[in-house]
Amino acid sequence: MAGLTDDRVKSGIQGLDEMIEGGFPSGFCYAVVAGPGAGKTIFGSQFLYRGITDYGENGLYITLEEPPYSIANSMMRFGWNLYELENREKLALVDASPIKTLQRSQYVIKAGLGNEEFSIDGLLGVVAEAKRKIGAKRCVVDSLTALSIQYRDEFEGRQQTLKLVKALTEMRLTTLLLAEASEESVDIQRFGAVDFLAQGVIYLHIYRVRDSVIRALEVRKMRGTKKVDKLCPYAFTDSGIAVYPQETVFR
Amino acid sequence: MAGLTDDRVKSGIQGLDEMIEGGFPSGFCYAVVAGPGAGKTIFGSQFLYRGITDYGENGLYITLEEPPYSIANSMMRFGWNLYELENREKLALVDASPIKTLQRSQYVIKAGLGNEEFSIDGLLGVVAEAKRKIGAKRCVVDSLTALSIQYRDEFEGRQQTLKLVKALTEMRLTTLLLAEASEESVDIQRFGAVDFLAQGVIYLHIYRVRDSVIRALEVRKMRGTKKVDKLCPYAFTDSGIAVYPQETVFR
Amino acid sequence: MAGLTDDRVKSGIQGLDEMIEGGFPSGFCYAVVAGPGAGKTIFGSQFLYRGITDYGENGLYITLEEPPYSIANSMMRFGWNLYELENREKLALVDASPIKTLQRSQYVIKAGLGNEEFSIDGLLGVVAEAKRKIGAKRCVVDSLTALSIQYRDEFEGRQQTLKLVKALTEMRLTTLLLAEASEESVDIQRFGAVDFLAQGVIYLHIYRVRDSVIRALEVRKMRGTKKVDKLCPYAFTDSGIAVYPQETVFR
Amino acid sequence: MAGLTDDRVKSGIQGLDEMIEGGFPSGFCYAVVAGPGAGKTIFGSQFLYRGITDYGENGLYITLEEPPYSIANSMMRFGWNLYELENREKLALVDASPIKTLQRSQYVIKAGLGNEEFSIDGLLGVVAEAKRKIGAKRCVVDSLTALSIQYRDEFEGRQQTLKLVKALTEMRLTTLLLAEASEESVDIQRFGAVDFLAQGVIYLHIYRVRDSVIRALEVRKMRGTKKVDKLCPYAFTDSGIAVYPQETVFR
Amino acid sequence: MAGLTDDRVKSGIQGLDEMIEGGFPSGFCYAVVAGPGAGKTIFGSQFLYRGITDYGENGLYITLEEPPYSIANSMMRFGWNLYELENREKLALVDASPIKTLQRSQYVIKAGLGNEEFSIDGLLGVVAEAKRKIGAKRCVVDSLTALSIQYRDEFEGRQQTLKLVKALTEMRLTTLLLAEASEESVDIQRFGAVDFLAQGVIYLHIYRVRDSVIRALEVRKMRGTKKVDKLCPYAFTDSGIAVYPQETVFR
Amino acid sequence: MAGLTDDRVKSGIQGLDEMIEGGFPSGFCYAVVAGPGAGKTIFGSQFLYRGITDYGENGLYITLEEPPYSIANSMMRFGWNLYELENREKLALVDASPIKTLQRSQYVIKAGLGNEEFSIDGLLGVVAEAKRKIGAKRCVVDSLTALSIQYRDEFEGRQQTLKLVKALTEMRLTTLLLAEASEESVDIQRFGAVDFLAQGVIYLHIYRVRDSVIRALEVRKMRGTKKVDKLCPYAFTDSGIAVYPQETVFR
Repeated sequence: MAGLTDDRVKSGIQGLDEMIEGGFPSGFCYAVVAGPGAGKTIFGSQFLYRGITDYGENGLYITLEEPPYSIANSMMRFGWNLYELENREKLALVDASPIKTLQRSQYVIKAGLGNEEFSIDGLLGVVAEAKRKIGAKRCVVDSLTALSIQYRDEFEGRQQTLKLVKALTEMRLTTLLLAEASEESVDIQRFGAVDFLAQGVIYLHIYRVRDSVIRALEVRKMRGTKKVDKLCPYAFTDSGIAVYPQETVFR
Repeated sequence: MAGLTDDRVKSGIQGLDEMIEGGFPSGFCYAVVAGPGAGKTIFGSQFLYRGITDYGENGLYITLEEPPYSIANSMMRFGWNLYELENREKLALVDASPIKTLQRSQYVIKAGLGNEEFSIDGLLGVVAEAKRKIGAKRCVVDSLTALSIQYRDEFEGRQQTLKLVKALTEMRLTTLLLAEASEESVDIQRFGAVDFLAQGVIYLHIYRVRDSVIRALEVRKMRGTKKVDKLCPYAFTDSGIAVYPQETVFR
Repeated sequence: MAGLTDDRVKSGIQGLDEMIEGGFPSGFCYAVVAGPGAGKTIFGSQFLYRGITDYGENGLYITLEEPPYSIANSMMRFGWNLYELENREKLALVDASPIKTLQRSQYVIKAGLGNEEFSIDGLLGVVAEAKRKIGAKRCVVDSLTALSIQYRDEFEGRQQTLKLVKALTEMRLTTLLLAEASEESVDIQRFGAVDFLAQGVIYLHIYRVRDSVIRALEVRKMRGTKKVDKLCPYAFTDSGIAVYPQETVFR
Repeated sequence: MAGLTDDRVKSGIQGLDEMIEGGFPSGFCYAVVAGPGAGKTIFGSQFLYRGITDYGENGLYITLEEPPYSIANSMMRFGWNLYELENREKLALVDASPIKTLQRSQYVIKAGLGNEEFSIDGLLGVVAEAKRKIGAKRCVVDSLTALSIQYRDEFEGRQQTLKLVKALTEMRLTTLLLAEASEESVDIQRFGAVDFLAQGVIYLHIYRVRDSVIRALEVRKMRGTKKVDKLCPYAFTDSGIAVYPQETVFR
Repeated sequence: MAGLTDDRVKSGIQGLDEMIEGGFPSGFCYAVVAGPGAGKTIFGSQFLYRGITDYGENGLYITLEEPPYSIANSMMRFGWNLYELENREKLALVDASPIKTLQRSQYVIKAGLGNEEFSIDGLLGVVAEAKRKIGAKRCVVDSLTALSIQYRDEFEGRQQTLKLVKALTEMRLTTLLLAEASEESVDIQRFGAVDFLAQGVIYLHIYRVRDSVIRALEVRKMRGTKKVDKLCPYAFTDSGIAVYPQETVFR
Repeated sequence: MAGLTDDRVKSGIQGLDEMIEGGFPSGFCYAVVAGPGAGKTIFGSQFLYRGITDYGENGLYITLEEPPYSIANSMMRFGWNLYELENREKLALVDASPIKTLQRSQYVIKAGLGNEEFSIDGLLGVVAEAKRKIGAKRCVVDSLTALSIQYRDEFEGRQQTLKLVKALTEMRLTTLLLAEASEESVDIQRFGAVDFLAQGVIYLHIYRVRDSVIRALEVRKMRGTKKVDKLCPYAFTDSGIAVYPQETVFR
């Protein structure tokens, strides 16, 4: 048992691991909650890219929003070539995006989000196959919020979200659940099923101070972990997101 | 009658009992309301662990969220070995979590939360059996909030919550009802049935002061008890949660 | 007519009567609105206990929340023995609580709150019988808020609440309607039927000032009465709730 | 036409008429919006009582909340004997209250509020008869808010309110529509039909300043009238409500 | 095309035209959003009255709230005799008010607002006829908010509002759409169809500063116009509303 | 792939391109969120006009609100003659406005917004044809908010919005989605489908500082781009909107 607690998955986010006793406890789901522009997609991609290149752990990127090529695209600025990793069978870009594109992906959900045939079961089938194929240990869901558009009633949405999170946990994937927060409040309540299946919750805050913007990462919850409680500034560097636990946000 | 008032159940939370005339009045339910990361699961586990090891009172842990092994897991950091207690038939981990796992638990609800066959009656059956088996005096429900996902309409949810709280009270178990509060407001109203069946309400507040976080415990309500009214700081120590009634939160 | 205005029912709450020209105008309903932990149940019990012991007016305690024994229980700390008063046929504890207990009460609603057979008519039948039996002049309903759990739609809830308040008024009982307020706002609007059938409204406020709590009683409305308008501090003493009209809350 | 503007109905509220060019333009409805305890019923009774005794204009008091005797009752403290006025056929107390009482009123709606047979048409029939009988020029509706309890859906409630206000306006009665506001906001919007049929809106504000309460009357809207815009303090005197246009509320 | 931009309709509100490059671009609808008592009806009447007397442009006043005589009435204080203008066939008072009155208007909607036979088509028929008869160039709708009472669901309400605004725009009438705002927020969003069909939006703000009231007009939006952005104080004078672009509201 | 990141579409808004590494990444949708009067229509028209005149990229203007002539009209003040560009087959004004006008447009949706035959498919048909005809590279949708009026339930509205955004993205048009924000909060959440299909989000803020108004542009999100984070003041000049990245909004 104790062993498990020590079994940590490195985040690949500079500065973060030291805030959470070395990494994420392995095999669970963690919510990354942030408003638009806070860098959720970068956070998720970095978790997978570093996982593969630095720690030899393959990963799945489940995209429910934009098509893989636009994500791959955006990540080029950090020199992360996701397609190349996919070709080397280290990364699987699972495309459940509503957007159909020319680029043929290996793992495409026939009926993407917004299509009424879309189903979590269909998605999970492809995910399971992709996992087996490349032996993935890590996973990113981008984003849970997107699911809300698929379901007419909130209850149904919560049930389906629960099914997804449940299945990923049972596959023992260490998963980041990217979740869009409104700017006003990053209120975990809103995520229905997520908040209580997530073993941890990380917030990416954006504070506006006069003309400029201050970014701060907060580890709000991390089960079985003595975590750093303070807000820590983070920034976008050429090699992705970096957190500065030593520094202060407000002085 | 008067006797009853004196019959107190020790909380096992360092510093708390002196705030509530020695402990919780025996045989009732108490709500522990807190936002994510405030330590609800630690609070509940400590109540049971100390109850068993320090006061010889066995306990039930009803988990509606994460699977027992992940709770057991998280508690290892405090040196609390819940599985070992279960093996010694002092603790029963009643697993109503949606997550299916390899670990076989003794007390598993066939249809866990999120499964449409799930029912409070089914849960109560297992609870009653577990109680009889180990002669439990204490109970923790982790969490009431989770129930909200099971029921389409709020009315149904309130009715079922009422049924659960009602049954536990009738079994004369001294129970902690862990309840997730949004960060904005820890508004007891939201818990429908809970607030008025709970004989007491304890809040775990998290205040952000500049970069860091301040934790404060408040005993908002405790029937038949002359309680300490002030906010008291609390912290996570190596031996669990400790409250400091002598100290002040804001100066 | 004028006579009626002078016919006052002593509240039994130390310091309150002088705020409302000597007591509650007889034969009407009054809302006591407060958040959790403000002492609603103590307020109601004191009103009945003092009514019996100091003014020779018998009373009914209608409990829709906790079972009579737990109320009786909580009141022991003030030395109020409700069961003994019931045995002397001066008090009737009308049990419409969802909780079934061993203690046999004389006045039990077969189908308590939360049971779908529960009906206001059924409750009123028992109330009328109890009133006749002991010749009650006072009544407490603990609490109106609890009724909300019984009715699926708000309209139905308002209608049934109206029916209850209407009947008690027609029985000319001087009644305290205990109502749970959220902490944020003690907004009378929320009580639908109550606010406009209640001849008076008393708020029990809880203010948090730094670490500690300040309690203040406010008589917001009292028909036919020249009332004290200011907030007055109140406290829990060994003999129950005491209000201090001479003192100030904030200085 | 111009004549009409000059045709003013004296409010009977000391200090108010000088704020609104001598009184209410005759033959229209005016909303008096206030929270609990602000004195709506006193305001309405004074309007009728003074109308009869000082200006020889008879009046109708339509009560949808408490029974006439309790209103009559509450008004005794000002020495206003409403029953005596009714006996002299100068006042008609139209009883649409849900409460049935021994006192037989002349003008009772068989099916009062809360009774499903209740209908605005039924009410208007009795109102019309009473008006004819005593030749009433003034009217008070206490209160519009009460109607909300009668109708399941808001739309229906608005329609029925509109019907009532419409009929009273067509009878050319100068009417005060008492409306309960929540304490937070006295937001005219909420009154659906009222706000735009009311030729004027008067607010009775209650401000809490430290321990005490400050009362202020505001004429928010008064068609065809050059009104005083400032908040004016008001108080309860032995002869009813008095407004002090010369004084200031905040200094 | 360019010509159009120069084709301005004078507002007739002293001080306003210089804020909007000389007047309203001709042939479109403009929302005038204000809380109760801000002077919407005066604003609209002045727009029509001055249009007729100073600029020789006839106008339509569509009243969905009070009957024409009460509007005419209220305007007498400014010396505006609307009936006389109607007799001279320069003004048409289109009466869709729920209130039936003795005064026979030329343009009465048989089924006024609140009547279930009421329809926008019926209203538009009378409007078209009135327009043809007097060759109207200007129009006022008092008020859009009133429509909300007619329609059970918001969607239907938006659709019908859209139909009305659409038709008036297609008739090339320069129209003021009077809209009631809650006091808290004058949030254009709320007006569904209006906000995006309106070529301009003018707010009439009421600020309470201590005891007194400050009025400020804001041109929030005016398509194709270089408008004055600042808040400008306005007041009620003997000749109607006057805006003071040179002065400041807060100093 | 990398190539794509470099493929930038110039905004044509003075000062904006330098904030977003030279322009919008080509072929995606971008939300421009602003309250009334902030200049959304100007922003969109300028994007197309400059695209055609300075960068030789033709464009589509899809209007769901006002008719093309009124937009064309409003833009004359900047000397932008949209009709002339349409005649030269560089611009297509796709008219889905509810308003029917005399001006015949080439690209009219028979059933415009508000008409129950209106459908996204019908709109997309005309859009595709227009795109083919003039080889458009840019597109503006004015506005997404307008769609909300068409659909009874929010779910349907989100689905249809998704379909539109999806199709435009698949056509590889670089599109600005103009979206109306309430004044209180420019909360991206509200736009359902938009926020997560939009590769970028630009806010146009209006701040009221005492009497006057301050305008500030914020690039809240821009995928694959190292963007300027600070608020930058913007103004309306004779040649359209100009942003000043060097200057500060608040000092």
